[in-house]
Amino acid sequence: MPIIRVPGFKFAGVTCGIKKSKKKDLALIFSERPATAAALFTTNRVKAAPVLVGMKRMQRGIIQAVVANSGNANACTGAGGMRDAEAMCREAGVRLGINPGLVLPSSTGVIGVPLPMAKVKSGIEKAAAVLSAGSFSQAAEAILTTDRFAKTASASFRVNDKKVVLAAMVKGAGMIAPNMATMLAYILTDAAVEAGTLRAVLKLAAEETFHCVTVDGDMSTNDTVLFLANGAAGNAPIRRGSRAERRLAEAAREVMKELAIKLVEDGEGATKVVEIFVVGARSVAEAKKVAFTVANSKLVKTAFFGSDPNFGRIMAAIGYAGVPIRPERIDVGFDGVTVVKNGVGMPSRERAAARVLRRLSFRLKIHLHQGKASAAVWTSDLSYEYVRINSAYRT
Amino acid sequence: MPIIRVPGFKFAGVTCGIKKSKKKDLALIFSERPATAAALFTTNRVKAAPVLVGMKRMQRGIIQAVVANSGNANACTGAGGMRDAEAMCREAGVRLGINPGLVLPSSTGVIGVPLPMAKVKSGIEKAAAVLSAGSFSQAAEAILTTDRFAKTASASFRVNDKKVVLAAMVKGAGMIAPNMATMLAYILTDAAVEAGTLRAVLKLAAEETFHCVTVDGDMSTNDTVLFLANGAAGNAPIRRGSRAERRLAEAAREVMKELAIKLVEDGEGATKVVEIFVVGARSVAEAKKVAFTVANSKLVKTAFFGSDPNFGRIMAAIGYAGVPIRPERIDVGFDGVTVVKNGVGMPSRERAAARVLRRLSFRLKIHLHQGKASAAVWTSDLSYEYVRINSAYRT
Repeated sequence: MPIIRVPGFKFAGVTCGIKKSKKKDLALIFSERPATAAALFTTNRVKAAPVLVGMKRMQRGIIQAVVANSGNANACTGAGGMRDAEAMCREAGVRLGINPGLVLPSSTGVIGVPLPMAKVKSGIEKAAAVLSAGSFSQAAEAILTTDRFAKTASASFRVNDKKVVLAAMVKGAGMIAPNMATMLAYILTDAAVEAGTLRAVLKLAAEETFHCVTVDGDMSTNDTVLFLANGAAGNAPIRRGSRAERRLAEAAREVMKELAIKLVEDGEGATKVVEIFVVGARSVAEAKKVAFTVANSKLVKTAFFGSDPNFGRIMAAIGYAGVPIRPERIDVGFDGVTVVKNGVGMPSRERAAARVLRRLSFRLKIHLHQGKASAAVWTSDLSYEYVRINSAYRT
Repeated sequence: MPIIRVPGFKFAGVTCGIKKSKKKDLALIFSERPATAAALFTTNRVKAAPVLVGMKRMQRGIIQAVVANSGNANACTGAGGMRDAEAMCREAGVRLGINPGLVLPSSTGVIGVPLPMAKVKSGIEKAAAVLSAGSFSQAAEAILTTDRFAKTASASFRVNDKKVVLAAMVKGAGMIAPNMATMLAYILTDAAVEAGTLRAVLKLAAEETFHCVTVDGDMSTNDTVLFLANGAAGNAPIRRGSRAERRLAEAAREVMKELAIKLVEDGEGATKVVEIFVVGARSVAEAKKVAFTVANSKLVKTAFFGSDPNFGRIMAAIGYAGVPIRPERIDVGFDGVTVVKNGVGMPSRERAAARVLRRLSFRLKIHLHQGKASAAVWTSDLSYEYVRINSAYRT
């Protein structure tokens, strides 16, 4: 894999001992100049301290560095947790020679345990000492928890003859659910982008990517998606409605979609990636509601794991989605193999459908025949490994 | 266990070959006289044929027999399925010598496969031939699918010096979710009860029992709760607002609560029964919403399985329940061991809490400190066995 570089950004990922495994657990992302920032945070009412601090930082909309640790979420830690999140920013500010108000903190891992601040501080010092433009993947590694692999993607495009880069790293694996920032994600570009444009591009791209994946339906306390544009490319700031904005939006969507699907691939215990594609709905909202209800059904997800084209469970989930569907109109198919036609099951097609379900990735298409709206959602299966990871996570 | 008898009712449970396992798969419940009936059906928009037929039967509110098969749900089977459900009633009517319009059909099992009607009919004939007052438990066995044990309960009480009996059988195991009839359940009494009173008693008792349990959050297409009062006791019909009504309601609640908890105990793969008790809510609706969100969280349920008092996942689930909670007020405890106080985790109590979680049954108490309403919900853990059962159910 080629090394990802984003002009004007430096990275570090180091081990400071928060994780017992001695894997990397502290990341720094540093922009040589203050960057325009847009962010999305978890909509969970229980928000971790770094999220609360990050939301405060975003009032100004200018960020120059991210300090992130894995192994400890600094959530449900009360006033002490808030002090620790601020202290992380202060330490990073000192080591990077910038105002702590320009540092956004993130934490991910176990909830309810105070951050081991001596380790965190030594980690920040260590990371600041090894910052480099070529260490993107080290930083991406240092934000992982139960993830099996680091998830990064990049794209480049032209703005008025200047080549600019857009790259991102995400962390996911568990507590992946929609309607929130979903995970830790840092999206970086050297393009100059006006603040309002950056916010609009992030919001729309997230709606079509990160907000369309689900692993377990659980929504985390710590999720943060941050988009930084540092302007190192020297272009005139990208504005709303411009052709450059469309290119930026395309690049963001492309990179974020690639990462969203990687999130599902790396979902805890996932052995398969399934696209739930609902068509013929009266509205996108109804299509999404049906798709997510099917995607989050424990019975459907275990059937996926067992390569069982159990259309009965799919029909049952469609039926309780809270959308006024008409059962007798519904068609259901797996990669072109129809298993329900006009609401009636076709047991004779099950053998052919089971062959589709043995693939590592396939599409479940649900046609409601009620309208013209559609939506796609990506999900994983529910395996023994999911239970193993989550019953033994801390023990 | 003593044999359950309800005066005026006869039962049968036989094998007719719908299940490959040769376990019992056809049940008859017969009342010597037409009984006053109240019923609750699944609120799933995808309803099985027997549910649609049953709803039609309930327009008159008089039922004399139930014919139920297990191993095949007769759902997603189109017009043919409707004909089969009616044919079951016809066959039962002929064999029992009653009007088919007094027969309520039920089916449970695999969805989308046509009923093997020759087997069903021979089963009805066989069952009608062996009907007896002492075969309550045989009928209870014949409605099971992935259940590990038959679930029955009974109580007796006095109405004006007459002793009356109330007994019930349920079938559950998977697709157990609230806000619906939840499962197959037949509740029988020899008391005479006015129709409106029977409906009111059933609705209220279900609200506090069957509607408070969840195994997987999936809602079935076939669920039916039927309450029959045949008046064989010879009492004056029980009326609204009477003391007898209170006794009937108490007996119904007691029997249905016992069965609701047995449903969770027998939840697919369940190794533990957990009561989620939410107090200090602003309304019962909000308390229930929080309780069910925690009860259905895959991450919380796997932590229960692993005896991990993972209060972070519990706090996260409380936070995304859609209720305007105040994190900093919340206390969380397991059987008296507090693990979260004022929203802050207490890692030092985890060892003591883990000992509680190793019990077969315990209470998770969540205090929201926002009001005076409370609600209790029962749920199971999410185990390897759940995944095994549901990934291999049909294969």
